[in-house]
Amino acid sequence: MGGKKMHTEIIAVGTEILLGQIVNTNAAFIARRLAGMGIDVYHQTVVGDNQQRLTEVIEIAAKRNDLVILMGGLGSTPDDLTKQTVARFLGKNLVEDAAAMKKIINYYAASEKEMTANNRLQAQYIEGSTPLKNETGFAVGEYYQNENGCDFLLLPGPPSELQPMFTNFAQPLLHKQYNHENLLFSRVLRFFGIGESLLVTKISDLIDEQSNPTLAPYAKTSEVTLRLTASAVNEQTAKELLDKMEKKVCSRVGEYMYGYGDDNTLVATVVAKLMQENLSITAAESLTAGAFQAALGNVPGVSHIFPGGFVTYANNAKSSLLDIPADLIQRNGVVSETTAKWMAQKAKEKMKTDIGISFTGVAGPEALEGNEAGTVWIGLAFKEQPVQAELYHFARQRSLVRERSVLTGLDWIRRELLK
Amino acid sequence: MGGKKMHTEIIAVGTEILLGQIVNTNAAFIARRLAGMGIDVYHQTVVGDNQQRLTEVIEIAAKRNDLVILMGGLGSTPDDLTKQTVARFLGKNLVEDAAAMKKIINYYAASEKEMTANNRLQAQYIEGSTPLKNETGFAVGEYYQNENGCDFLLLPGPPSELQPMFTNFAQPLLHKQYNHENLLFSRVLRFFGIGESLLVTKISDLIDEQSNPTLAPYAKTSEVTLRLTASAVNEQTAKELLDKMEKKVCSRVGEYMYGYGDDNTLVATVVAKLMQENLSITAAESLTAGAFQAALGNVPGVSHIFPGGFVTYANNAKSSLLDIPADLIQRNGVVSETTAKWMAQKAKEKMKTDIGISFTGVAGPEALEGNEAGTVWIGLAFKEQPVQAELYHFARQRSLVRERSVLTGLDWIRRELLK
Repeated sequence: MGGKKMHTEIIAVGTEILLGQIVNTNAAFIARRLAGMGIDVYHQTVVGDNQQRLTEVIEIAAKRNDLVILMGGLGSTPDDLTKQTVARFLGKNLVEDAAAMKKIINYYAASEKEMTANNRLQAQYIEGSTPLKNETGFAVGEYYQNENGCDFLLLPGPPSELQPMFTNFAQPLLHKQYNHENLLFSRVLRFFGIGESLLVTKISDLIDEQSNPTLAPYAKTSEVTLRLTASAVNEQTAKELLDKMEKKVCSRVGEYMYGYGDDNTLVATVVAKLMQENLSITAAESLTAGAFQAALGNVPGVSHIFPGGFVTYANNAKSSLLDIPADLIQRNGVVSETTAKWMAQKAKEKMKTDIGISFTGVAGPEALEGNEAGTVWIGLAFKEQPVQAELYHFARQRSLVRERSVLTGLDWIRRELLK
Repeated sequence: MGGKKMHTEIIAVGTEILLGQIVNTNAAFIARRLAGMGIDVYHQTVVGDNQQRLTEVIEIAAKRNDLVILMGGLGSTPDDLTKQTVARFLGKNLVEDAAAMKKIINYYAASEKEMTANNRLQAQYIEGSTPLKNETGFAVGEYYQNENGCDFLLLPGPPSELQPMFTNFAQPLLHKQYNHENLLFSRVLRFFGIGESLLVTKISDLIDEQSNPTLAPYAKTSEVTLRLTASAVNEQTAKELLDKMEKKVCSRVGEYMYGYGDDNTLVATVVAKLMQENLSITAAESLTAGAFQAALGNVPGVSHIFPGGFVTYANNAKSSLLDIPADLIQRNGVVSETTAKWMAQKAKEKMKTDIGISFTGVAGPEALEGNEAGTVWIGLAFKEQPVQAELYHFARQRSLVRERSVLTGLDWIRRELLK
């Protein structure tokens, strides 16, 4: 990456974290981003809103690091002590950021609430540091470059303020500071159908040899993301580095990759593709009980291609809502290829859509018709193709069986659309 | 609480946390439990799988605490160094737990996998400590009571192992150790429809004065829990203390309380009540697109009272699936009292259930028919009562509007069932 190798500590300040009332997701967010920049984090610390203990934690951190990142305690309550404590540690005064101050004054003028002295504090920063704009709140952040020791980065505690401030202002500054003239460019690859450990195994040599771009895997409940971060003099060079690495990654695990981006999801990818091809969709859901359609409903604009559908939880609902002969279900079993196919086909016909998908299976914990929990048939009536059905065994707890069923159905549609 | 006041530090050991690949939820879990026991946590720390840095962190923690809790690094890979490092710090050897060793040997015998020397390590503990049984894994935990300084508690990293070990073995031991002969009893109260800050404000005097029972609030996305923990010589005395405190709490915020227990949910409470009274239910969902029914489907056994229902996302689905006259929807608007009432009533009639509920509104981000995002009508056809509808304004992002709609519908049914 060039530049000197940084040792960094992330300190969250807040009694509510010490009490376990909130989970320290900020630390994971910042850590992932720093990993992408090639900056080493050797310690994460949480300390309460207490001046003495905060001072001691800062003293320890300043000794063992080149950069200390403090999160939280920049607000306007008497509990908020972070910037005052760092200023005292550095022997510096606080000064006021005129733009931030104006924003606070305007807010209180408009809201007719009374402004207190504490509110002014949110616009203050340590003399000599670079204030960082808070686009989604009032408290300014700041970056203090220390000629005589450890540097400090101060960020607000609420994730809705911390994340944009870090992405838009702190990250470019850190990168410039520790990596000289290069710029940083990231690309997030998203995978479904492969676990984190298998993905990491398949690209372990790329991870071991990583330098530029860096690779940072991150596991969510049912998917994995891989963040590639390139350092380069311009966007074109970065793009070439990222393209090359993506190609290497995809030669190993490309079949599981469904899309790009931090805020993307499998359902958003599938809905975008369906809207692009103007293909409408419906569903008949038994064990998932509406979860597939609810997932579709979470994508804005989906009403263009999704009119609605059926939740057929009990057998008689499959007969009454979808006109599937009761004796057919009885003969084949509710968890069967035939029932899954009829559900998909009938839903498609009734809603006059291009695609009908169905889910019937055993969410558990009890077995059903001799099928173990986790047994799921998915049916797919795709355009003019003959209706298909596939059998899955998801050996997990009830809620995961249902979630995995929904995602597997979406992934099947994604694969059909690629053909 | 009696006993000496403990200063405690929670240390998570794991490079994957430092890299931000996983979020440190263990720290929040342990912190909440300790808060309930009246044990103060002043520091939380994360350090990687590195012997030198782990040793330094232990040295610092041992100086400033009476008890240090280490989580993770008890497994069988070469990265796992926690118990060896603590043993070295204490100048102690490792010894083997016969029962844990037998479990490991039996597993490898049955699975025909090869057992390595590292696997034996999982059954070892520091000489002089009390080993803690791992009911859901192989690595034993341990509690080391130190006559010459800080005590140590070592727990496995996976939450599925850490949580039962802490609840069933570590917590009773800590309580006995630091609180003498008393036993610890907890009760979790669950609230919907009130935010954490308002709840805390309404019982702030009880929180400020807390000693026995202690009170620990915890905010989730759309609900708040309050854990009461009493220390007493027997269960009867604890029950009296908890009853008394619950009564005080409920005199302030009782109308928002829907149930008890760590693993309880609003939907589980409502489904249990419906099953108890043998009342069947269906739904017609527009903006929620199946999310209400999917929530019902997450409760085992719900098929006894939930046959299925309708997702009527587009207007024509409301007409075609529910036989609501198209001109009625057009005249009143899709987001209207009339449409909500018809949807609930028609769904109930078609599925022949005791209860029909409907959701129609604007999930956002765009407005609809002049209604802002967050505008939601919920309709309820409850037994033989005239169908009702209520208007809500949820001013949040799309996914939260839909989640809040579902929970508000459930809470409405809960209130009707109480009448």
